[in-house]
Amino acid sequence: MKTLIDRQTLQFLVHDLLEVESLCERPAFVDHSPEIFQSVIDTAETIATKYFADHNAKADQNEPVFDGKKVTMIPEVKIAYEHYADAGFLGATFSAELGGMALPKLVNSAAQSYFLSANPSTVAYPFLTSAAAGVIEKFGSQEQKDRFLRPMLAGRYTGTMALTEPDVGSSLGDLRTSATPAKDGTYLIKGHKMYISGGDHELSENIVHLVLARIKGAPKGVKGISLFIVPKKPISEEAEVSLTDNDVVLAGLLHKMGYRGTTSTVLNFGENDRCVGYLLGEANHGLSYMFQMMNEARIGVGLGAAVMGYRGFLESLDYAKQRTQGRLPSNRNPDSPPVAIIQHADVKKMLLQQKCYSEGALALCLYASKLVDDLETHEDDKQRESASELLDLLTPIVKAWPSHYGPRANDLAIQVLAGAGYTKDYPLEQLYRDNRLNPIHEGTNGIQALDLTGRKLWQKGSQGLKELAMRVQATIDEAKACKPLAANANAVAGVLKDLQQTTFQLASVLQQKGPELALANASEYLDSFGGLVVGWLWLAQAVKAQALLDERKNGTMGQYSEAFLQGKIQACNFYMNTELPRLAAQLTHFNTFDDTALAMQEAWF
Amino acid sequence: MKTLIDRQTLQFLVHDLLEVESLCERPAFVDHSPEIFQSVIDTAETIATKYFADHNAKADQNEPVFDGKKVTMIPEVKIAYEHYADAGFLGATFSAELGGMALPKLVNSAAQSYFLSANPSTVAYPFLTSAAAGVIEKFGSQEQKDRFLRPMLAGRYTGTMALTEPDVGSSLGDLRTSATPAKDGTYLIKGHKMYISGGDHELSENIVHLVLARIKGAPKGVKGISLFIVPKKPISEEAEVSLTDNDVVLAGLLHKMGYRGTTSTVLNFGENDRCVGYLLGEANHGLSYMFQMMNEARIGVGLGAAVMGYRGFLESLDYAKQRTQGRLPSNRNPDSPPVAIIQHADVKKMLLQQKCYSEGALALCLYASKLVDDLETHEDDKQRESASELLDLLTPIVKAWPSHYGPRANDLAIQVLAGAGYTKDYPLEQLYRDNRLNPIHEGTNGIQALDLTGRKLWQKGSQGLKELAMRVQATIDEAKACKPLAANANAVAGVLKDLQQTTFQLASVLQQKGPELALANASEYLDSFGGLVVGWLWLAQAVKAQALLDERKNGTMGQYSEAFLQGKIQACNFYMNTELPRLAAQLTHFNTFDDTALAMQEAWF
Repeated sequence: MKTLIDRQTLQFLVHDLLEVESLCERPAFVDHSPEIFQSVIDTAETIATKYFADHNAKADQNEPVFDGKKVTMIPEVKIAYEHYADAGFLGATFSAELGGMALPKLVNSAAQSYFLSANPSTVAYPFLTSAAAGVIEKFGSQEQKDRFLRPMLAGRYTGTMALTEPDVGSSLGDLRTSATPAKDGTYLIKGHKMYISGGDHELSENIVHLVLARIKGAPKGVKGISLFIVPKKPISEEAEVSLTDNDVVLAGLLHKMGYRGTTSTVLNFGENDRCVGYLLGEANHGLSYMFQMMNEARIGVGLGAAVMGYRGFLESLDYAKQRTQGRLPSNRNPDSPPVAIIQHADVKKMLLQQKCYSEGALALCLYASKLVDDLETHEDDKQRESASELLDLLTPIVKAWPSHYGPRANDLAIQVLAGAGYTKDYPLEQLYRDNRLNPIHEGTNGIQALDLTGRKLWQKGSQGLKELAMRVQATIDEAKACKPLAANANAVAGVLKDLQQTTFQLASVLQQKGPELALANASEYLDSFGGLVVGWLWLAQAVKAQALLDERKNGTMGQYSEAFLQGKIQACNFYMNTELPRLAAQLTHFNTFDDTALAMQEAWF
Repeated sequence: MKTLIDRQTLQFLVHDLLEVESLCERPAFVDHSPEIFQSVIDTAETIATKYFADHNAKADQNEPVFDGKKVTMIPEVKIAYEHYADAGFLGATFSAELGGMALPKLVNSAAQSYFLSANPSTVAYPFLTSAAAGVIEKFGSQEQKDRFLRPMLAGRYTGTMALTEPDVGSSLGDLRTSATPAKDGTYLIKGHKMYISGGDHELSENIVHLVLARIKGAPKGVKGISLFIVPKKPISEEAEVSLTDNDVVLAGLLHKMGYRGTTSTVLNFGENDRCVGYLLGEANHGLSYMFQMMNEARIGVGLGAAVMGYRGFLESLDYAKQRTQGRLPSNRNPDSPPVAIIQHADVKKMLLQQKCYSEGALALCLYASKLVDDLETHEDDKQRESASELLDLLTPIVKAWPSHYGPRANDLAIQVLAGAGYTKDYPLEQLYRDNRLNPIHEGTNGIQALDLTGRKLWQKGSQGLKELAMRVQATIDEAKACKPLAANANAVAGVLKDLQQTTFQLASVLQQKGPELALANASEYLDSFGGLVVGWLWLAQAVKAQALLDERKNGTMGQYSEAFLQGKIQACNFYMNTELPRLAAQLTHFNTFDDTALAMQEAWF
């Protein structure tokens, strides 16, 4: 059985870097203990290994089929869903009164890592269900919670997010799906939605779509969008599912390069003018509700991308240790035995890059999950506030950085295996295809860059940025006090300073020359910003690892091997030496506010 | 019908940058004319559009099937093969006495661009046949030419290169396939080969495998390898194919992520000890024969990667012009109509990057093809010599740079289309999968980096490098004399100087500290070197474009639109502004001879 995530690796991030135990002291988690946290994570590993990893390749090779009436898929998906639900993961972070486990987001994300490593396309179904349930929990009425949320958490209903429309894409303000008030307080929904993941299947008694639509007469643009609960089948007040349908019709399945086990659907709502929707919260607040949920959905995308990158790293590492080929450059004796390819410098380098990208991205996503816990449950008002501002700032990074570098890691993993990696005999080509979705969904990375540079950097007087700088500086100070890490500390300090100066400059160009020029190279800024944040988290890991190594020298052996801790420090060194200089050069370029791309004319291509 | 390659783009490279007309003055091509060249390229476009592009997606979705007896594939492949053969492309560069067209390599590569754009997996069959035929032409006896080469060029037999073995991969010196001399001068071949493209199918009467094997008692390592002609079926002296077989057995087809139309095979030679092979050239010279062919095969890989990158560029450009979505950042009016996404700066940037990568890579591969013409047909001995040395130096770049940046371009093309690009409704996801093979085959890019830094840089007193520097400098001087390009000229000059200093340093570290440390980061050096070479070719294109723009101002309209020429200059500007600074930073890092990756221990991962 393949390792889904190395135990020391996850342990080190969750316990040492992010100090999960400290959460037990908060009132929200006072009923929990570090042992409970660990047992949840262990259960995730067991179920993921047994019921998710088993059919990851099979689901890819046998994508769901729509015969015009219903969608069929391999039976393993439903079995996995049931085990996931039975173990309580659907409600992992929901309150006990709703039947949930009230776990910290950090613990939930650690558990999710196993599922995402095992089978990202099957876990998408429960993942989307929990996300939709979360919106109803926050903004739904008691009746809506009883009718929709409870059966969702119980595993009877699944959920979706129905935002995108065929001609509109990311520009949600232009959406055309309409909602006409009926006399009984419900709405008649009419419109087309596209790329709706999990939009149809036979996994559950019912599917609860959260649909963005515009109430007749509402303002144009984003200010006139409302959010509706639209079940596939009508539901009585007792949450009994009717045999009839609610005029939600599957127009077709989209056929994708990867994530093939997850249905991606085109849905027609109200073709026969009898699709009933229930307004969630207040009218015209739909987009803001969705965006409050979006922070966590984006962490989920980042986490998936990170873990897929990580899984490719483990696979290629395993291969590189087993496979022998060639000799070191200094050895020209054909009689000498060939070496394991992990001995070749270029292979080591490709493995180190993968380690840096995937473990760095994983650290980032877990850090963000902890911020969600902090903003929701920290006892100190100011800490909650600063966690909220920092999370808002980091969300575009958390979504975009892992979803850019996770696929890069998968690309390198294929290269380590070379010809073998290109075949279906190894899981790497599937990871490469699956992970390619992540820079696209939940807002393309280009959209994330505009969100960061045009909005998040400046909101609430840039408190998020100040908070980040303070935290990065604190780690730099710690690292400076530790001699072997002083050079790395200086490297991070240098890029932090560059980034601050660049941001200052960006503010001034935005004001003086407007957003067209200022934001033209936003994706470069995002990449550099993300690279700095991940660099900071690598430095923080090295500080912890060095402290644990020092403890070992003093006789306290601890739970990590010396090799593991050395590896963390070497990966940090590698990141600082190879990634940071590139970021610095990129920031220098960004700072010129180069208009070459902006000035390119359509006819010139 | 989709454009496979924009006419102005190819014309500009072949005629203006590389001055194909000048080849007609050479004795080797004296029977040709610019009109003939153009008509060959036009014919390629017609056949590629009609008989290759038609089934590119279909061949991907219906990969060849092996039922244990024979391989079947969609019929369109054979039809395409026949049209390709009938038009004479199999023998495009072969002499007239062998039935060939004796065309320059440059013209042939331009023609191949159309086939590679239309359908890289179908054109692999004739491409491999011509490559194998080329080896027999150079090293085979007259009898071998009559028995094997002629039917190959006539389209009756296909060819393969059978180098790789299951446990050996790139380390050819360790190969185990054996050749036992028989009394009649033939050899009995015995061994296993893997990843043999086109290794079995029913496209032709016979398949001619060129097999690397070791004659019993030959030296170990690369010095004991010989090359054999091993037909699938026995052939009489009159080149009649027997009904019996030659004990070459297809053990199975490999299932790949892309290039699915091309069979990738595991072949067993001589399981029943009756597989007859014919020694090609002299014993123990096999590898050097193969490597003489390899230069051109590697140009072919680079060309395929470049053209696939280019095709993705055209597709995403087309989409970006049609698709409307969102508004410019300065416009917050929801009543205004959405703009075509090509208006968004980030989309422009992704398109410009694709243009830079794919047209730059195409220029590089066509330049290399012209070098082959120069080394084979230039009338000046010194020019032939310097072309040969420059081509040797550039070959690892020509293979690796396009095969790294071509897939990057395809990645960006998907991102331009976002969700749509991830579906099978558009050709981009297939391009992304197909192109991923190119960094792997014909020597992984890691191998190319070692070839460049450990061998090619230094051979024949680094004449190749000196020649390159001279040519780059000449373009810099031209560009400096042209005011709008002076800054770009200085940028290239700066990186050239950095690269020369780094190379000097590399020589000294190699000598003083040995290859382990000196070559540890060879892939960084290759990337920077390649980036400089492509930057030089962009500068050269800008010089030509500027000259043509100036002519327009003086009333000579020429064949290119003003917009096309402006686009060339803007792409050059973009490359200089965004790519070169990254290369400079990378060279600075390489120059530190950082041993972080080298010092990483297996247990630390």
